[in-house]
Amino acid sequence: MKLTILGCYSATPRTLGNTTSQVLEIGNHMFLIDCGEGTQVHLRKHKVKFNRIKRIFISHLHGDHFFGLVGLISTFRLLTREADLHVYGPKGIKEVVTLQMKLADSWTNYNLYFHELTATESELIFEDEAVEVYTIPLEHRIYTNGYLFKEKEGDRKLDIDAAKAANIDVAYYRKLKQGFDVENEDGVLIDNKTVTFPAEKPKSYAFCSDTVYKEDIVPIIKDVDVLYHESTFLENHAHLAPKTKHSTAKEAATIAKLANAGTLILGHYSSRYPDLNLFKEEAHTVFDNVELAEDGKSFDF
Amino acid sequence: MKLTILGCYSATPRTLGNTTSQVLEIGNHMFLIDCGEGTQVHLRKHKVKFNRIKRIFISHLHGDHFFGLVGLISTFRLLTREADLHVYGPKGIKEVVTLQMKLADSWTNYNLYFHELTATESELIFEDEAVEVYTIPLEHRIYTNGYLFKEKEGDRKLDIDAAKAANIDVAYYRKLKQGFDVENEDGVLIDNKTVTFPAEKPKSYAFCSDTVYKEDIVPIIKDVDVLYHESTFLENHAHLAPKTKHSTAKEAATIAKLANAGTLILGHYSSRYPDLNLFKEEAHTVFDNVELAEDGKSFDF
Repeated sequence: MKLTILGCYSATPRTLGNTTSQVLEIGNHMFLIDCGEGTQVHLRKHKVKFNRIKRIFISHLHGDHFFGLVGLISTFRLLTREADLHVYGPKGIKEVVTLQMKLADSWTNYNLYFHELTATESELIFEDEAVEVYTIPLEHRIYTNGYLFKEKEGDRKLDIDAAKAANIDVAYYRKLKQGFDVENEDGVLIDNKTVTFPAEKPKSYAFCSDTVYKEDIVPIIKDVDVLYHESTFLENHAHLAPKTKHSTAKEAATIAKLANAGTLILGHYSSRYPDLNLFKEEAHTVFDNVELAEDGKSFDF
Repeated sequence: MKLTILGCYSATPRTLGNTTSQVLEIGNHMFLIDCGEGTQVHLRKHKVKFNRIKRIFISHLHGDHFFGLVGLISTFRLLTREADLHVYGPKGIKEVVTLQMKLADSWTNYNLYFHELTATESELIFEDEAVEVYTIPLEHRIYTNGYLFKEKEGDRKLDIDAAKAANIDVAYYRKLKQGFDVENEDGVLIDNKTVTFPAEKPKSYAFCSDTVYKEDIVPIIKDVDVLYHESTFLENHAHLAPKTKHSTAKEAATIAKLANAGTLILGHYSSRYPDLNLFKEEAHTVFDNVELAEDGKSFDF
């Protein structure tokens, strides 16, 4: 699982400071999460292959999270994309994109599917053999969802030497990986655990931005490996957080602690703070494993 | 009159290569012409004061000319702008911007006026004591206007030494600048031309992008000082120009020649060409005074 931060600042794009967008590689997927203005340029800068992006998840319809979407969809068209594209986001996202296509008389030559969200409870919105994606209902000034990305339990790893030694026919190796006990060439039933290693622990990633401090999300993201939680403010501006429906670094850390997250990544910083380390220090008072999102930074898990 | 090119490439924004946007300083105005994605960041990079932009002119509703508009309008709001903003552009521009404001539940705290254009003949769309702005109907795949910006004839310059020598009361200097003959302290009528210099010749600028080769525009832009004319293609791709409703560098130069323009600025280059000098060389075969638009380049006239 690899996360690349394309932008992690709040409010407005600047010469140094992109608005929210991230690429999450998980299973065989390359998911784009949020799409602030200029995202297509930042994707190019980080050499992300446009064709690998098949699903885009938009948290909410504030400009700093989605003003780059229509441009990306339009550029996909100009690059003669053929692969389907699925966009998940709040109701209204389809209208705003299609209106602009209509005005430009420029329809996509690929299939473009909108999955408009309206639920206020967490729901499964995508699933295949390797991954599940759930919404995380957040509380912001407008309807907003975070997203929980979960790998499914994978196959067990074959202990090839042990399997050979146990005289198991190669034709059964697949069954072994799937966890079954099998008979060997001598008709003896072999305990799966003696010839395989456990599957890698499935990883999970929760993206929570933008939101006021909201403990309701804790059960949804319980034991998540990596939590990205917005921290627009520091505690010295804590009075602004409930008013603007944002969180402080300390609040983000409290959610991480309650959820027993593995790692907390902070982001969505207000530009009023000159030093990002202040966010890390504040979160550290509550939670140990804190990382700072920075434009262009990648995290491998 | 000063023109700053924020972006001059066609189709899609790239890491090096912004889509169309320009700032024209004329009279006391700072006009923004077109607004491709990322324009607000390029304005910041070139230290253009956001508050000085009071009028924005959009040629047409293809993304590379207007996907940055809603973000700029939104950023003006976040920066607690108070000054009125006027946006000129094709019908539909109001709906697309206001829909996004509605979805974001973020209305501007300044007055935002849309002037939607539908005419197919050139029309005067803005005028004050110093400047006139006319549309230039172009022919592209969708409804498109260029814009002609014309300074009005200014005041004559006072020859202060001559005025003093002629014994004219200071109270009459304003009348002299306005071109009137005045009586001096001795009651003698003084010929205005003997105590003033002619006003500076008013300057004009025509922005023509995007368009197929269209001689109909020549009478509208006749004798323009500076013509920006799109040159998406070179003649070796001339067959693509009518199909996509774009022009070649040679066609742009032909329009400049027919219009007796002072200077031709080329732009809106297709990214297929590695060397912009090819555009200049091609245009030079028809017209002498050719300049190349480049991102970040300024022209003083």
